[in-house]
Amino acid sequence: MANVLNSGIKLVKNVGRYNVGASSLDELSGLLTRLREQAVCDGKKSGVIFLVDQYFKADATLTDRIALQVSDVLEFIPTKDEPKTDDIDRLVASLILKGFSEPAAVVGIGGGITMDYAKAVSNLLTNGGNAAQYQGWDLVKVPGIFKIGIPTISGTGAETTRTCVMTNPATGMKLGMNSDFTVFDHVIMDPELTATVPRDQYFFTGMDAYIHCIEALEGSYRNAIGDAYSRETINLCRQVFLEDDMQTPANREKLMVASYLGGCAIATSYVGLVHPLSAGLSVVLGIHHCVANCIVMRAMADYYPAAYDEFWKMAEHQRVKVPEGVCQNLGEADFKALYEASIMHQKPLTNALGENYKSILTQDKVTDLFKKM
Amino acid sequence: MANVLNSGIKLVKNVGRYNVGASSLDELSGLLTRLREQAVCDGKKSGVIFLVDQYFKADATLTDRIALQVSDVLEFIPTKDEPKTDDIDRLVASLILKGFSEPAAVVGIGGGITMDYAKAVSNLLTNGGNAAQYQGWDLVKVPGIFKIGIPTISGTGAETTRTCVMTNPATGMKLGMNSDFTVFDHVIMDPELTATVPRDQYFFTGMDAYIHCIEALEGSYRNAIGDAYSRETINLCRQVFLEDDMQTPANREKLMVASYLGGCAIATSYVGLVHPLSAGLSVVLGIHHCVANCIVMRAMADYYPAAYDEFWKMAEHQRVKVPEGVCQNLGEADFKALYEASIMHQKPLTNALGENYKSILTQDKVTDLFKKM
Repeated sequence: MANVLNSGIKLVKNVGRYNVGASSLDELSGLLTRLREQAVCDGKKSGVIFLVDQYFKADATLTDRIALQVSDVLEFIPTKDEPKTDDIDRLVASLILKGFSEPAAVVGIGGGITMDYAKAVSNLLTNGGNAAQYQGWDLVKVPGIFKIGIPTISGTGAETTRTCVMTNPATGMKLGMNSDFTVFDHVIMDPELTATVPRDQYFFTGMDAYIHCIEALEGSYRNAIGDAYSRETINLCRQVFLEDDMQTPANREKLMVASYLGGCAIATSYVGLVHPLSAGLSVVLGIHHCVANCIVMRAMADYYPAAYDEFWKMAEHQRVKVPEGVCQNLGEADFKALYEASIMHQKPLTNALGENYKSILTQDKVTDLFKKM
Repeated sequence: MANVLNSGIKLVKNVGRYNVGASSLDELSGLLTRLREQAVCDGKKSGVIFLVDQYFKADATLTDRIALQVSDVLEFIPTKDEPKTDDIDRLVASLILKGFSEPAAVVGIGGGITMDYAKAVSNLLTNGGNAAQYQGWDLVKVPGIFKIGIPTISGTGAETTRTCVMTNPATGMKLGMNSDFTVFDHVIMDPELTATVPRDQYFFTGMDAYIHCIEALEGSYRNAIGDAYSRETINLCRQVFLEDDMQTPANREKLMVASYLGGCAIATSYVGLVHPLSAGLSVVLGIHHCVANCIVMRAMADYYPAAYDEFWKMAEHQRVKVPEGVCQNLGEADFKALYEASIMHQKPLTNALGENYKSILTQDKVTDLFKKM
């Protein structure tokens, strides 16, 4: 691929603190006690907002494990679709109506979608206005409410990154609140929380970490720390997905760490060709991000040959069926829409293919790629 | 070695933000401007404390590059000996006398010693009292002054860790302010700053990162994230020290990243046998930490055989002469002192050899090891 250039990403905000290891969730209660006490000292209420993946509705033990108090509010987050700006605005308005305009903390417990909701809600409560106003880079003005991320599935890196994915249906824009203030103040990585993730979902989501690090390492915008994080993320993914049982406790801990470090990698680098095409599948066909990435890998033999081989070896080893033929009944207008939703991602495509990426990725070429999926 | 046990280290505080890459030092001026403005808003003075390795006394360009202002104070830090608690107390007293009790920031520019001074000064200015009061775990009560670490040599990981090495001559105790408040708020990693480091020192200090990660990975107290950081640190050290020119700009950037990630590794794991013996050499013979580690490697063939081979291969490849025979003229009392200064490091020695480490490391055995150095 192209020459190595400096990534130009010079300033990185880290997650404030993190807990790691089995039963780390037990640490949440003490952390919240300190935050509640601080809130009361500051003349605020001690209530906490919990945003929890709807998957845990059925888990009767959860309220105990998070030490839910009567002064708190818990909202289950639907994860059928990625967050829309309107959904976030409605959630914020309802929380304010319930008296949670200045909570002691916002806790997001779930996958990328739920954690992204938590990031956005935290920022909007202190910054005011609507989610759409903050779609872009460094538009958030002041720190959000203290935000805690607790991943229950591994791979997206949402627990580490400085953005939260949001789609604005009015403008069609899929763009997050890209800000240092979006980074979690605290992350709790408890691999016991991923014990019940269905096999396929575990694989698809875990592969998000693998794929974005492959893209970063093959790109032209690089730096030594991003490369280091990417290499080790890929190494951990290999350990997990080339082993017979990818879901042992030790492998779940490794994948949780891979997800966290993969997020650190993205923070100092860029994705490449997979993510733009995957975004096309999400925007036009409504396919979820992580499975969309895996579907795109069907067309990546010429672009990431070593990763292509390894990816399919892992999928086969884990006996995971990646959807196939998702574009087979589409018409010309659909392919045009897919092309447009993909080609707009200038920075990743330049990273992968150089500045003349549009002459390489013609509409016909992109259509051919989607037809392979 | 022993079975793998959970490290028990569950909560980790990260460096707040970091800059990375050539010319990153240029970002300091803007960062300080924001901190100065904030200080004035808060009704404080805008002056900044710069603690700079004495090595840079001769560098006439430095004051420009750090945007030194007349309201600031710059103290050169002697690096002949590791910080003593009294030295730190005297420095803090003199800074307060000069009117810097509430500066806008404390900036440490140098190696581990200078950065450790900056951490300690920052904490003492807000917490009061003497340095010796805070030797131990979590004794620092409130956050220090905003602290910025700017390494000018790579390896110790002082830019990342939650401690600062200090020796108390009155008690003989070498123990830092082990606290989340000791972690830098901001780190600037500019590999241009390590361009003038002498070859031997570059190697000895860089090897601190390699050695503590080897110790961590061979230990029994472990976790997935510590292992990940250690593996990648070792990988980067291999890239640097097995190449012909270890000091190219790219290799200096890699070693700077290795140092940072090595610090992250220590934060979630423990060292092993090298560091306790190295501490013996420092305490009894006054040998600096990083070269002492390398000297200890002379006696490590039986304990870390693979790392032993690789270490000496790197030293040979870089044509670096590790001091030899440092214990050859010592008497019985000296060897007893060396034994006692080493064997007191319970946690690392348990990590390396198990709970019965004292029955393995008898005084005769330890004396034999020192005689190999």
